[in-house]
Amino acid sequence: MLNEKMVALGTQRSVIRELFEYGKQRAAEVGAENVFDFSIGNPSVPAPDCVNETAIKLLKEMDSVILHGYTSAQGDAGVRKMIADSLNSRFQTSFTADNLYMTVGAAAALCCCLNGLACPGDEFIVFAPYFPEYKVFIEATGASMKLIPADIEAFQIDFKAFEEAINEHTKGVLVNSPNNPSGAVYSEETIKKLAEILEAKSAEYHHPIYLIADEPYREIAFEGTFVPYLPKYYNNTLVCYSWSKSLSLPGERMGYVVVPDEMDDHELVYAAIAGAGRSLGYVNAPGLFQRVCALCANETSDISVYETNKNILTKGLRDMGYHVVEPGGTFYMFPRTLIDDDIAFCEKAKLEHNLLIVPGTGFGCPGHARISYCVPTEQVERSLAAFEKLAKSYK
Amino acid sequence: MLNEKMVALGTQRSVIRELFEYGKQRAAEVGAENVFDFSIGNPSVPAPDCVNETAIKLLKEMDSVILHGYTSAQGDAGVRKMIADSLNSRFQTSFTADNLYMTVGAAAALCCCLNGLACPGDEFIVFAPYFPEYKVFIEATGASMKLIPADIEAFQIDFKAFEEAINEHTKGVLVNSPNNPSGAVYSEETIKKLAEILEAKSAEYHHPIYLIADEPYREIAFEGTFVPYLPKYYNNTLVCYSWSKSLSLPGERMGYVVVPDEMDDHELVYAAIAGAGRSLGYVNAPGLFQRVCALCANETSDISVYETNKNILTKGLRDMGYHVVEPGGTFYMFPRTLIDDDIAFCEKAKLEHNLLIVPGTGFGCPGHARISYCVPTEQVERSLAAFEKLAKSYK
Repeated sequence: MLNEKMVALGTQRSVIRELFEYGKQRAAEVGAENVFDFSIGNPSVPAPDCVNETAIKLLKEMDSVILHGYTSAQGDAGVRKMIADSLNSRFQTSFTADNLYMTVGAAAALCCCLNGLACPGDEFIVFAPYFPEYKVFIEATGASMKLIPADIEAFQIDFKAFEEAINEHTKGVLVNSPNNPSGAVYSEETIKKLAEILEAKSAEYHHPIYLIADEPYREIAFEGTFVPYLPKYYNNTLVCYSWSKSLSLPGERMGYVVVPDEMDDHELVYAAIAGAGRSLGYVNAPGLFQRVCALCANETSDISVYETNKNILTKGLRDMGYHVVEPGGTFYMFPRTLIDDDIAFCEKAKLEHNLLIVPGTGFGCPGHARISYCVPTEQVERSLAAFEKLAKSYK
Repeated sequence: MLNEKMVALGTQRSVIRELFEYGKQRAAEVGAENVFDFSIGNPSVPAPDCVNETAIKLLKEMDSVILHGYTSAQGDAGVRKMIADSLNSRFQTSFTADNLYMTVGAAAALCCCLNGLACPGDEFIVFAPYFPEYKVFIEATGASMKLIPADIEAFQIDFKAFEEAINEHTKGVLVNSPNNPSGAVYSEETIKKLAEILEAKSAEYHHPIYLIADEPYREIAFEGTFVPYLPKYYNNTLVCYSWSKSLSLPGERMGYVVVPDEMDDHELVYAAIAGAGRSLGYVNAPGLFQRVCALCANETSDISVYETNKNILTKGLRDMGYHVVEPGGTFYMFPRTLIDDDIAFCEKAKLEHNLLIVPGTGFGCPGHARISYCVPTEQVERSLAAFEKLAKSYK
């Protein structure tokens, strides 16, 4: 008599969360220094000083009734203006406050976009490897997810499989670059080809196919890796952003959707997103952190540690014989497992070497494992011996 | 090609919001002192000192990575324990952290409960006058809302109409006491009778009929008005709470659901609510304000001004010949309009007397108007002359 889908979603144990809990328990048994927990994508560096300083200043100086009061449903107008200005200065766009819709993190941004767009029978295309909650969010709208197998050589896009998957039911395509779990960044060439296909297929089926860009890792790009700003390549792009990773604020849940003026029927799309937010119970994104994030929009945490860790792991693992596609950003990498069965491989890593990495199967890409290196560099260094023992056990 | 329901929800203009915007514009024309804006339910008193002091202390002293990091999806365990303790000391209950699920305000709490419970074909019963977003939230799940006409003598429950409305499709009943828009508080007698009927009908139809209590106004009760704690009267009660009104924090979006152990299959119901939260994109309720609200859970803003305003308005309006059911709580009252057409009445009040009150029709109760007296007492006093002129114009 309950909604069985919701019961299942609330009861299913997350592989990642279980691994994380195991790690804490194991640390108590054998000592934290002997457990190498790479399970969870929780930023390991604190928020920049700007965040707490701005929050304290607002709490001390701003009228409490206004600071903690309802903002308009789309977010405070001043906040949206500041964010538009920040985007414009960084990406040479010309957004105004009216192009922004503030959300309770990127998950909410995605849910508002998907619920605003989805009609019965619609399909959304996702590329493996992918963040598994996408399936939950897409299916919650009544639409279905179509998964394109991974390009395991470079974690770009298998365009042949992509083109074949598009049909008259395709409402949108969801991309996540820099990518969780692979760390890959789609090249400008990939984005141009993606845009070209979407233009052609939109024309063929006489309706826009929306590109939904989930971009919480945009700022975590290595060695000046270029992360193309998608609205500049394809007009029907919705950008879903979150400060969870760039400002190390995942628990505060603050993000936004960009609805560019160049989008077909952009005012209706904005209305649909706002209507979805309303029907999902999002009254407004939290007021204090709307203002904090807007005032710190041009800052990031000290994300250099992630690049240091990436370099150590890429070289170290390759030297041991692992196949690693070098990440262009994020704090993840997605090496191939040394046997086809990634679940068995990760279980062995866990039980025999206290090395906690996540099987690729859950990300739609078997034969790989995710390493979350948002951890102290010292843990990364000490873990190399465990990765080496694991490799040797397969020789 | 967009979801037309969502476009409609995002495009519909809110009567209340329009009235509020008119008030601001009118104030610029004739002076703020000549406009009597009773349109919006935004708390007019600041949060108690505890709120900002606690927030600043946490921002200064707590580890930033933990403070701003993900909490578990159901909310921080320590936070849930503190809230359970606060409820237990006030209502002689015996909740633990496991009975609490933290949400992004009461709207999210309602959406999580409704989505967790609703199956195709289900009906939820609501009593007029009612907060109009209930219909949006219920219909978003695919269920339908059945509205019971108001008991306009006392704003309790028309039990005859209620009993007749229950059938095998009734999944739940949503109550809001203290009530927006009437300010009425359901008496213990009303609650006992409600529970009795729900027990009998649950037995008759062989499945639980859930009682969903939306309680953001619980703490704003006048002259010691007793607000029965519903889980003590009916086991299958879900309590949806928010600190928006009690701590004057509507923009921060912080609330919770209580799932009592006494509820049938309470663990499955909790899982369904958590699953719904997940599918709606609620990753966790914002971390800083989870902790702030838990640490201030036994405090309230200085809500005495609302009672002062209620007393002045009740006496003043009655002396002028208005029919007023005296509120037991909230910062609303819901007098009868002096003509049947409440929309025409409110329009006349607005255009001829700069008196901004909201027609009852939108709350499912024509012939009445909502006065939101969460305003300075001085505005209430000055408004009496306008209410009087309005009354005289109908004599």
